[in-house]
Amino acid sequence: MSSCTTYDPSAPGLLSFAKAREGFLDGSDRPRNYLERCLETISQREDTVRAFVAIDADAARAVADAANERYRAGKPLSVLDGMPIAIKDIFDTAGLPSENGSLVYAGRRPKFDGAVAANLRRGGAVILGKTITTEFAFAAPGATRNPWDKLRTPGGSSSGSAAAVGAAMVPVAIGSQGRASTLRPASYCGTWALKTSRGAIDWRGSLPTPVSTNHVGILAGSLADMWMTANWLSRTGGSEAGHPSLSGEPSLPDARRPHRLARLDTAGWSSVPAPAKDAFETAMAAFGRRGVEIAGRADDPAIEAFEGDLVALREQLVTILLYEMRWPIVMLADKMPERMSDTARERAALAATITPADYARALDWADGVRARHSALGEKYDACVTLSSTGIATKGMPVGDMTFGEPSSLLRVPAINAPLLASQGMPLGIQLMGLLHADLDLVQIAHWMIHAVQRGED
Amino acid sequence: MSSCTTYDPSAPGLLSFAKAREGFLDGSDRPRNYLERCLETISQREDTVRAFVAIDADAARAVADAANERYRAGKPLSVLDGMPIAIKDIFDTAGLPSENGSLVYAGRRPKFDGAVAANLRRGGAVILGKTITTEFAFAAPGATRNPWDKLRTPGGSSSGSAAAVGAAMVPVAIGSQGRASTLRPASYCGTWALKTSRGAIDWRGSLPTPVSTNHVGILAGSLADMWMTANWLSRTGGSEAGHPSLSGEPSLPDARRPHRLARLDTAGWSSVPAPAKDAFETAMAAFGRRGVEIAGRADDPAIEAFEGDLVALREQLVTILLYEMRWPIVMLADKMPERMSDTARERAALAATITPADYARALDWADGVRARHSALGEKYDACVTLSSTGIATKGMPVGDMTFGEPSSLLRVPAINAPLLASQGMPLGIQLMGLLHADLDLVQIAHWMIHAVQRGED
Repeated sequence: MSSCTTYDPSAPGLLSFAKAREGFLDGSDRPRNYLERCLETISQREDTVRAFVAIDADAARAVADAANERYRAGKPLSVLDGMPIAIKDIFDTAGLPSENGSLVYAGRRPKFDGAVAANLRRGGAVILGKTITTEFAFAAPGATRNPWDKLRTPGGSSSGSAAAVGAAMVPVAIGSQGRASTLRPASYCGTWALKTSRGAIDWRGSLPTPVSTNHVGILAGSLADMWMTANWLSRTGGSEAGHPSLSGEPSLPDARRPHRLARLDTAGWSSVPAPAKDAFETAMAAFGRRGVEIAGRADDPAIEAFEGDLVALREQLVTILLYEMRWPIVMLADKMPERMSDTARERAALAATITPADYARALDWADGVRARHSALGEKYDACVTLSSTGIATKGMPVGDMTFGEPSSLLRVPAINAPLLASQGMPLGIQLMGLLHADLDLVQIAHWMIHAVQRGED
Repeated sequence: MSSCTTYDPSAPGLLSFAKAREGFLDGSDRPRNYLERCLETISQREDTVRAFVAIDADAARAVADAANERYRAGKPLSVLDGMPIAIKDIFDTAGLPSENGSLVYAGRRPKFDGAVAANLRRGGAVILGKTITTEFAFAAPGATRNPWDKLRTPGGSSSGSAAAVGAAMVPVAIGSQGRASTLRPASYCGTWALKTSRGAIDWRGSLPTPVSTNHVGILAGSLADMWMTANWLSRTGGSEAGHPSLSGEPSLPDARRPHRLARLDTAGWSSVPAPAKDAFETAMAAFGRRGVEIAGRADDPAIEAFEGDLVALREQLVTILLYEMRWPIVMLADKMPERMSDTARERAALAATITPADYARALDWADGVRARHSALGEKYDACVTLSSTGIATKGMPVGDMTFGEPSSLLRVPAINAPLLASQGMPLGIQLMGLLHADLDLVQIAHWMIHAVQRGED
């Protein structure tokens, strides 16, 4: 499975730590053995996939051995104890490179863990290495390739995290999203992903540009792993200042069939190739046959109005992001222009042109869209759309961002469900929920697995 | 004046850069000369006051010399060009110590400026040094003494910033407030201070514990300097992600007499000694004689209800702050307990006991109080109260926080006006305004100078 190159969504060959953990608990398997299997896959595939900035196998082995002992004693630290995990290189990790995908930070090895790494370690997770990100998580692409076709992009900016999970190197990887940086690579690489409600997972100790749309993203080989990682980080590690933690328990919640879903085109539908459209329509038809009412822009003026917001969204989102990058991007462009890509320098120049009034207007506009999205929640269990404009591209550096942008600006949870395929490549369905309703979204996603993969029942 | 030890609020001997700048523009004075006068005061008073962690006079001289040339050419970079300024040691400064008042960070000299330092330098301000803060800005006190009585505290956590301005060593210093850390030291040291609306000034690149109540504070010798520094940082440097910049221009706005002020006791009034109460009552009477309607809890049930909120406020605020400190305080206490004070370690232990549900309840409660405060804005121009429970104390390490807490939780702007005295020490009047109405508050503060110092007119 680790060498398969054509994607089959009903048997994608991804890892599930939650299943393996049953073996740790009953003594039939051990965290160290699980780690060695991950390292074996990495040794087979990393030369082609290029997911990692750095791997520290020796440190990981020592942590896995300690987890062995805790399971043997019947005292694991958490549901994550012994779980190999890769971390996007914008999150600080003590003793490992933390370079933010930029030459500006070349050689940086922070003394302390950021919140994500510190809280993973507290639960016994095995931090295996750091994954490649685009420059500053927004500019020049990294070296990572799509695990299903090395000529295609893995997407960005969480390129290495999505590729590492898609290549079954690790069950879970940490990513982030400020615009489309979790949903798009997850769709391209065929992984589960949760971009939580804004602030549900503490983000501090990371890339110094936390913009107001930044979210921690969890990319995983299974829905259960995705949820337990997010839940544990949020509830035990803590949320970001000013935002509540996720609700619910770490175990995968029961599946729940939604009554009504609002189907969104977003500004991206017209760019979706026909085969990908067909795959999505087939899934919607399957949901309909299973009793879910799917309403679109033609069925409900409230959805039509919201679609109008989504068309205008990019311009406002870009205004917001640019203004919020004034520090440190303008400072770095002044100080070390030779260590930044043309793209990054151009963004710095643009950032300086946005006025406080432009920014205040964009914030106000975003508040209005959030209110209209929230009103949809009175009628619909969630919104459903694609996670990307089709499968991973060959030409565009890291692909089109359109389908990722709405949940970023709205600060609401979104899930990529890797349940479709098109032209032998993965393609994700996106569920987008209400602010702080992450748990509800996971229940619906759980139901979708059966609805798509088993057809009618 | 630099050696005076008894406080006279009508002639406190503080510096005003805005006035000196007129001399730079007409050629009668020069930034380098101004800097040398500051350095002279520091050489006379620093041994006693102990405001600074580090001073870099040579670097400051080079920057001041460059400002000389710009004024000579008629091309100053900004209203702050050539202004000596001290920065609380929780804000990163390239090449200067940035130790967060903690042994955990001893010897830390970051490669890059945080947002505050970077944006000050862009305007030509002369960063003279770093000022002493309490440990992590919340735990063990530093060595600073009150410039008006060395046996008394300067207050905290912006101890050195308030003392440096109060001792006329610098016209302006940067502080911060998450609980009472700007208003209290400003009141104790007799300086003007603005704690802006939450997020009005970019905070990034600082102490790694930005809690949701963190605000940049500006401590200054004059109202004009306070406002121009805040305005320039917010509008040219930029705001914190998700929050709008301040409105208005850098120049001091015209004075505006308020129609009605809501006079608040807060939970602190019963702890205020009689002489300080008398000083405050005298000021309120002066406002009344000048036509301002002052309403208190006995006059308006809405104020009475809000006073009830303020009594309950501390418990909720502490819950919020502790939960938000999980990272990094818990991590640091695990890793380097020997480098933390007992107080800091105790907070870390407490932080781990707050549950996600406790935190969510406290956030909800705070939203409710914000709504009730905002409703007061329909009737009153601002709230008025003291900035501290009397003058600087001798016993308590950095004094009582009660009067600082409401504006922190509410995220609204607050000004300390150093217009009162009691027992030969400074005492501040606090104006607390509506969210994003910082400019209105400055106009009212401007009027108050005349109302208090000149009596009736």
